This record gives sequence, structure tokens and C-alpha cells, in this order.
Amino acid sequence: MEFDAALTPPPAQHHWVLTLICVDGPGIVHAISGAVVQAGGNITESQQFASNDTGRFFMRLQIETQAGREVLEAALAPVVAHYGMNWRLDVVGRPLRTLVLASTAAHCVNDMLFRQRAGLLPVHIPLVLSNHSTLRDLAGFYGVPFEAYPVTDAESKAAFEQRILRAVEEHEIELVVLARYMQILSPELCTALEGRAINIHHSFLPGFKGANPYKQAHARGVKLIGATAHFVTSDLDEGPIIEQNVVRVDHSRSASELVAIGQDEESRTLTQAVKWFAEDRVLLDGARTIIFR
Amino acid sequence: MEFDAALTPPPAQHHWVLTLICVDGPGIVHAISGAVVQAGGNITESQQFASNDTGRFFMRLQIETQAGREVLEAALAPVVAHYGMNWRLDVVGRPLRTLVLASTAAHCVNDMLFRQRAGLLPVHIPLVLSNHSTLRDLAGFYGVPFEAYPVTDAESKAAFEQRILRAVEEHEIELVVLARYMQILSPELCTALEGRAINIHHSFLPGFKGANPYKQAHARGVKLIGATAHFVTSDLDEGPIIEQNVVRVDHSRSASELVAIGQDEESRTLTQAVKWFAEDRVLLDGARTIIFR
Amino acid sequence: MEFDAALTPPPAQHHWVLTLICVDGPGIVHAISGAVVQAGGNITESQQFASNDTGRFFMRLQIETQAGREVLEAALAPVVAHYGMNWRLDVVGRPLRTLVLASTAAHCVNDMLFRQRAGLLPVHIPLVLSNHSTLRDLAGFYGVPFEAYPVTDAESKAAFEQRILRAVEEHEIELVVLARYMQILSPELCTALEGRAINIHHSFLPGFKGANPYKQAHARGVKLIGATAHFVTSDLDEGPIIEQNVVRVDHSRSASELVAIGQDEESRTLTQAVKWFAEDRVLLDGARTIIFR
Amino acid sequence: MEFDAALTPPPAQHHWVLTLICVDGPGIVHAISGAVVQAGGNITESQQFASNDTGRFFMRLQIETQAGREVLEAALAPVVAHYGMNWRLDVVGRPLRTLVLASTAAHCVNDMLFRQRAGLLPVHIPLVLSNHSTLRDLAGFYGVPFEAYPVTDAESKAAFEQRILRAVEEHEIELVVLARYMQILSPELCTALEGRAINIHHSFLPGFKGANPYKQAHARGVKLIGATAHFVTSDLDEGPIIEQNVVRVDHSRSASELVAIGQDEESRTLTQAVKWFAEDRVLLDGARTIIFR
Repeated sequence: MEFDAALTPPPAQHHWVLTLICVDGPGIVHAISGAVVQAGGNITESQQFASNDTGRFFMRLQIETQAGREVLEAALAPVVAHYGMNWRLDVVGRPLRTLVLASTAAHCVNDMLFRQRAGLLPVHIPLVLSNHSTLRDLAGFYGVPFEAYPVTDAESKAAFEQRILRAVEEHEIELVVLARYMQILSPELCTALEGRAINIHHSFLPGFKGANPYKQAHARGVKLIGATAHFVTSDLDEGPIIEQNVVRVDHSRSASELVAIGQDEESRTLTQAVKWFAEDRVLLDGARTIIFR
Repeated sequence: MEFDAALTPPPAQHHWVLTLICVDGPGIVHAISGAVVQAGGNITESQQFASNDTGRFFMRLQIETQAGREVLEAALAPVVAHYGMNWRLDVVGRPLRTLVLASTAAHCVNDMLFRQRAGLLPVHIPLVLSNHSTLRDLAGFYGVPFEAYPVTDAESKAAFEQRILRAVEEHEIELVVLARYMQILSPELCTALEGRAINIHHSFLPGFKGANPYKQAHARGVKLIGATAHFVTSDLDEGPIIEQNVVRVDHSRSASELVAIGQDEESRTLTQAVKWFAEDRVLLDGARTIIFR
Repeated sequence: MEFDAALTPPPAQHHWVLTLICVDGPGIVHAISGAVVQAGGNITESQQFASNDTGRFFMRLQIETQAGREVLEAALAPVVAHYGMNWRLDVVGRPLRTLVLASTAAHCVNDMLFRQRAGLLPVHIPLVLSNHSTLRDLAGFYGVPFEAYPVTDAESKAAFEQRILRAVEEHEIELVVLARYMQILSPELCTALEGRAINIHHSFLPGFKGANPYKQAHARGVKLIGATAHFVTSDLDEGPIIEQNVVRVDHSRSASELVAIGQDEESRTLTQAVKWFAEDRVLLDGARTIIFR
Repeated sequence: MEFDAALTPPPAQHHWVLTLICVDGPGIVHAISGAVVQAGGNITESQQFASNDTGRFFMRLQIETQAGREVLEAALAPVVAHYGMNWRLDVVGRPLRTLVLASTAAHCVNDMLFRQRAGLLPVHIPLVLSNHSTLRDLAGFYGVPFEAYPVTDAESKAAFEQRILRAVEEHEIELVVLARYMQILSPELCTALEGRAINIHHSFLPGFKGANPYKQAHARGVKLIGATAHFVTSDLDEGPIIEQNVVRVDHSRSASELVAIGQDEESRTLTQAVKWFAEDRVLLDGARTIIFR
């Protein structure tokens, strides 16, 4: 694994990832695999799930074919129309345009930037926005533009959110990552970013929502602490969960030691969630996520 | 490990476990170790903890000595008096007299009875009390008396709780284990059993308190489910936590599959907590537990 | 989960599990899913894998259909013939006829028998064979016939192996489980049971093969100990691995304490492997296993 | 946790860590705690272990005292002399002077440098030596001097080892970390660095020693892959183990995917081992380590 993005080969234009969601029913796999055969494709990875909760069918395929996108889309068109499918076709490994929001904590941002450069995380990060300038040099080392604006009142907060929305538009952002960004997003911004913003919360949700979860965890005397990556919704810490991890602690740890211990779980939980999202492995089934690992 | 309790040797009368709790201050270790030396003892295991939260000092020692209990107690007497210690001296490995409360679920009861007989859990279970007769044969196979009384209304519930209290007295019970006993204890009984009753809750507390935690976990879409062994208090599912474990699940699991998957965590979390308690490794520090593993 | 096998409903005759193995190539999924559609079936679970190592394609499907086995087989016949598939069709949840071999250790046998009765493990165990009589009562409690024959020399060992083979024939055994059976099987028996005998080895293979793995683990000072469930082959402890688990230990544990700690991992690793095998989730790809969890 | 080493306060000169090793016998704890009392000290953390394998006694204490080092040493002097103790007294939190050896892989080096700067790892790294220049910029960003010398033959290898030894002397190095340094050290260098050089091996030892462990792991079909941090000895991959971790993988992972997956375990296993060593929590008991976590 060379530590240099320039050495990472561009993703192959003949390896595709297809995700689709529709009402469950018979014949879907046969119809889709027929379209793949018609486009001269070979299925290299396939996962499916039928949800008893919502009656919906979810599928993720990786398809190798020398035919181009147009041929593949043409073959799929009648099938997706017939089943009324919500679908998405992309090149396997294409870096996802990702905006990172940060405050002062470095660990999650460092983990994302390092992995992007090492070729371990299929994202392209054109910008880091922060309400503090703490991480400017870190972003700079990784060659990522960085902008900091203090958020001190309603006005500066609104301006910051406007900057986020402009950045999303300018850079055609596909994913916004709150990498320990310590501001609550307005309901309007949550709505605007619905389904494409991921937050890391420093507890094992639904335990210890809100502020100071490690202090809460210490007070309650839990024996495991955790981290949760979830979609951002206007209902704080209630968005669909993508990934969770825990680590064992004992009585001897102070609340501030829990903070240090928990950082590793936060970083790896967040980058795992981002990786799955960037690989089109995360689908929404109501308030729950389907993860095609 | 022979599967026969009769082969388990009686615990040695010259290996002692000493636990003590007092206000923290200088010189405690020196004073205690001096008493041990005076009694001709050798410290084979030692753990200590000073709580910043409550200012208390906790210690657990294992001491080998050919001197009897009287000599050891005499040596310790001035020290525990001087520091105003709450202390307890017992023989290492002495089986703890344990009352098991059960309903219909077999897994936790089976695990406790099997481990008792295999010599893996230092408890002596003179009686299983249940509000159902489902587990009568299982208890019978392990040679443990079993009594079942239906609990259907306030009167039968009060009678059952009276039976519990009588059993505690008759058998000089040191620990009551709620092994998936599906009744809420009355506040009076909780008070009577304070600090010597352990429950297993089938979620990772503080998440999903109360009824149907697996159904709640499914609805919330968590990626790990868990189990929590905790002391029983009148505040439901809020007692001090002794042990917790989690296991990974994914979107494909129904709520009833979570029930089956979670059983293993429930059993091993409960038996682990009981083992630590029986070995005098669990001390209370306010709402938190000290576990000297 | 009621603790009574009699309450377990018989598996539905309209829910099928289909596994197939063939040389990889295009169109397989389409062809198979076409056969399923033709038989009026709905795919409820599907997993596939193409092995780069051996060029083979592996698939496991669960299919719901009101059509009977004959209709389903007729629809599949041309497809499996065309692709030269190695295939297997069974009813989802049908208990696998399983022979258990034991010695004196109780934990794995207890775990299997308990889970069978609790409806957690889809096996039917018509017989336990042992070279010691230690576990006779345990088997008896679970209503499972038990036979013990001392194995003390080459002659008694050969006789025991003949008894195994006869039992396999008499009971149409589909799986032989070595539940801490402390005898090495002869090469002839290994060959006769190839692909349908599972052993639990009490180490994290390939570390610590052969005798006394916990003693070896203690001497080497490893920080995690483990257990490995694997297919039996004539090459001792070298058969394809089905499942592995580890548990953390520290310097303070003696070799005999490691034995006690490791038992839980042995039990759960073995029963997990047996469960997957009984559910047709374990396929062989050369020296490696495909596990469709 | 501010991302800036300059903000980390210097360690307090009144909080000490004392480790000691001697032949086991009665009265040691009393004697040591007496010396602590004499120096006006308070024991804030204490762990001990008596090894049945070697008959040695190990202890680690943290002691708070306003008395200086001289007073504390004077109080301890008669005790350590009496028991013939191998002992070490240091300031809690003092950064350990650490030399890092690297090749081209960035993940372990990045993790160490990031944690040093974030105040999460009590080391001072005055120099990174590498046989490749790949990581020059990374070291530069963290303000750590970096030297690269190609190692292509016996002569250049000997020169590189001479540079290591000179650096150890110049910087009074206390720990040498092989952070995926892909050269085998000569027996002479191993001897020179005995007990103060830590390597990370990318397998769960003792499985898969030597080259290409992930390729070996893939071929064997293990279900967990791991990493092992161990002391360097002239017997390759056989030095005393300090820490190990594993992560679950399945059949679908190629050998090169195992490489990527394993990196996280390598980094966290190595930094954990270094942290414990820097905090004087790692003691040697023959071929095994005592870890006072």
C-alpha cells in the first residue's frame, strides 16, 4: 500500500456497481440478471434483502462488462421501469466527492485524510470546513483546502451553513461528513442534506444522546463504551444507524480517560461508515439501514 | 474438568480472600500488609482502587497462611478499626449460597446449573423458584430442588415474594440471581435484597430499558445487541452494572432472531457476573461497581 | 424459546435451500433464477461467491414455493445439467442426522444437546458414542442413547471405529461431530467421513497444533487464546477451517486456567460450525471453506 | 484533546512510577509500602504478580509524594537491597525517547506520529530511520527528522545498522520501534537492543511466521487475521509477545484485501504496546511478558 494517491490507478470503466430498491415480488432477480446477460456482463458480487418491515426489496450487484454505460443502461431500462425501481449505477471504486466538517478534534479528520491518500478510502475531499482553525495545517499537509469561520452566534451560524450549502453545490458534493463537528445543524440544513450526511456520535446509541456522552457513561458505570455513525436528521442522534463499535473499559477510567479511549472507536466507526457509503453499500429502509458488506 | 461436583476438592482453609472499603488516605496498604505479615501470610493476589468520585479506597487481597481465621482476624482487627473499614474475610473458592429465580427461559438457568456441577462456578444452589414449572426437569437432572408457583395477580405475587424471603432465610442465601425471571420485584423485596440480587437484562443498558428490548433494538436498527448484568434496585434497569457484552447483528435479522442470538450473551454475561460476585470481586462505589477481575 | 423440542414445529415443506457449485461463467444466476420463476418460487435469501483460487462458482439460495420438490427439481434439471453443477436441495430447517463422539469433557456435548432440545440447533442426534462413560447421565437427561466402549489398544480402537461406521450406516448419519473426542481417527475413517466430520480443536489454528495446546499457549505467552472448528482430514489439525473464536487472557492465567477459560470458546465455536453446516451454509473450495452466513 | 504537543503539560515531578522484580517471598509489599509511607507518599495505583513459572515477584506502583526523587530513593534503598530487587523509578508521563525504523508502509508510522502530537502516546521521537524515502514528508509534517539510506546488500545493511546504533547513543534512545521495517536485524543488533526493541508482525503469532503472512492466512483459510507486537530477539518472530489483536474476515477476501484490513490491527496493536512500554507496564518473565494494564 503505497502512501501516495497518485499511484492509485483510476477505477476501471468496465466494473460497475448497481443498487436498486423496489416493492418486493417474484421474478426480480431473474429480470435483472437477464439484463446483465444481455449487456454481456458477469456478476462478480451480489447481495439482496427483502424487508418484512416495509415490503421492499433491496439489491446490490457488481457487474463486469466490456459494454459501456449506455449499453448497460439500455438493457436495464425496461426492468427498472417495469418494477418501478429506485436505482443507481456507478463505476466501482470511483472516489465520492466528500465535504468534511470539523471543529478542533483531529482524530477523525486525520483518519479520513490519511486513508484517502493511502488509497484505502474511495473519497475525493475537495474541502474541509471548520468553525476553528486548529486543523488547518493537517489539511494542508494532505493537500486539502481548508476554510475556518468562527461560529459564535445565530448570524455566524447561518453564514456557516450557507457556506456549507454553497460548497455542496460548487463541488457537486455527494456526501457530507461531520467529523466531530461540534455544532448542531439547523433543521433546514438537515433536510437539504437528507440521506447524504453522516455524523459520528461518541456513544453507543441509543444510550447517552446529546452532550458529554463519556461523562454520562462514566456516571452510569457502563463496562463498554462505544461510537455510532449515523445519518444526520433533524431529530438529534436519532438518524438511521450505519455502524457501531464498542471497547471495554473498567471502573478505574475517569471520564476524561474515556474520551481518549473512545477516539479510536470514533475514527474507525466513521471511516468504516464512509467507506461503505462510498461503495454504495448503504441503503435506507425506513429508519433502518441495509448494509451490504 | 470432570463433569462431577463430587470430584471438586473442598476449598483450602489456608487461602483467604479479604475485601475492604474505607475512606482513602495514606498508609492503608502498609497497615494491611503489616497485619498479613504478622499473621504469617503471603499475598498471592492484590488489587486496589481509589475512587475520585466518592473519595473511598477499595482493596481485594488473596492471602495464603497456615494460621487460622482467628489469628488472621486478630492481626487485622486494629487496622480495620483504625481506618473504619467495611471488610469481609472469606475462604477462597467457598461456594456461595445462591437462590435462582426463573420463569420459562432455560438458557441462563442451564448455564448456571451446568457450571456449578462442572466446578466452573463457585456457587451452591439449594433451590430454584419459578413462576412456571417449565424447568422442573432441568433442575431435577442437576439435583437441585425446584418449586413453581403461578403468579397471576397481586395476591399470588405477594405470596411468591414471601416464599423468596423465607427461602433466603432458610438457606442463608447470600445471592439471589434473576435468571430471566420475568416478574418485576416489589420495592420492598428490592430493598430487602439490596446488594445481593443480580438481574440479567437483555439489552446493552442504558439503551432499551423495560419490556421487549430486542423488539426495540430491531426497530432502532442497532448494529450490536447486548446484555447487562446488574444489581437489582427498585429503580427498574437502573441498578449498578456488573458486566456487559455485545454481539454484532445486521439488518437481515428479525426481532425474534435477535432473541435467539442474544441468549448466548445473556447466559455468559450473567454467569460471569455471578462468578465475580461469588469470588468477592464486585464492590459497590455509589451507583457504579468496582470489578477486581 | 420454549425448552422442549416437541413444541418445535416441523419444517415447512415449501421453503427450500439450494446449494450449487460449478465452474464459474456467465449467465448462471439468470439460468438458476429462471428455473426458480418457472417453479413459481420466490428467492428469500441468496448468496454467491466466485473463487479466484479455483475458478469455481458457489451459490446458496432459499426459495419459497407451493410447488413440490418434483416440480422444483424438474425446473432445475436442465440448468444443473448444462453447467455441470454439484447441487443439493433440502428443506429449510430439516434437522440433520448427527452422530456425536465424546470422551470425558462435558461442555461441548452439553451445549449441543441443550441447543437441540431448545430448538436452537437444527440437528437430530440419535446416538452419542464415547470412549468413557462419564457423560452417560447427561445424554440420558436429554433422551439421547449413549454407548461407551473403552479404547485402550489398537484392537479396541479398531472396534470403536467399526462401531462408528456401523452407526453412520444404521442412522443414515449426515454429520459426525467430534465434541472433544480425545482420540485420533485412523486415516481410513477420516477418508470414509470426508467432508462430513467436524472437530473442535482447542487452539487458534494454525497455532498450537497437536496435544496440550493450552500448555503451549501459556508457554508462548499469547495474549488471546482460541478455538477452531474444522473438517476432519487425515492430516491432523490441518482440515479446512469452518469457524474460529478467541478470548483475551493475560499473564496471570495458569495453563489450567486457560483450559477453563477456553471451554466457552470451544462450545460456541463448535455449535456455530455445526449450525452453519446443518443449514447448508458451508461449502468446500479446496482447502478453504465458503461460509454463507 | 488538542492536536498540539506544545499544549501538553510537562509531567508532574511528584507523581512516580516504580517497577520492581525480585525472587518471590513474604513481606515484600509491606516493606515497599513502608518505604512509600516513609517518603510521605500515597500509592495511587498498584499491581503485582507472582510467577509460578519462574518464582519471581513483579510489582508496579504509582506513588504521589511531594518529596523529591532523592528522598524516595533513600527510603527505597534498604528494601531493594534486602530483596535484591531489579528496580526502576521514573516520573509518570515522561515521554520515552523512541527511535522509529520504517520502510515504505505508512500506517504504523502515521499512527505513532499522530498520537505523539495529539498527546496520546508518551514518547519523544527524535528521528525516523528508513531504508526508503517514502515517508519523508509525513515525518516532516510532524516535525520529526528523517533519514533514508538504501539497504541493498550486506555492506549497506551493515552501514544502516551502524547508523541505528549511533542514533541510539546520540539520542539516548530508550526504545526502538520497528514500524513495519522490512529488514531482518542482525543477531548482533538484536542483542544490543535486547528488551528495548519492539516489532509489529502482521499475523497472530505463532501462526504464520516469516514472510507474507497474509498470503499464508488466505491459503489456510483462517476466519480471523491478526497482528502481534513483540520484543525483537535474534530468533525471528519468537520474541516475547506484548499485545495481539484479531479481526474477522471471510472467504471473499483476497490476500491483498487481507493486507488492507490488517493494517488497522497492526497500527493499534503496535501503538498499544509502545504505550504500555512507555508507561513502564511491560515486564519480562522469561519468554513471557507481564502487562500491568
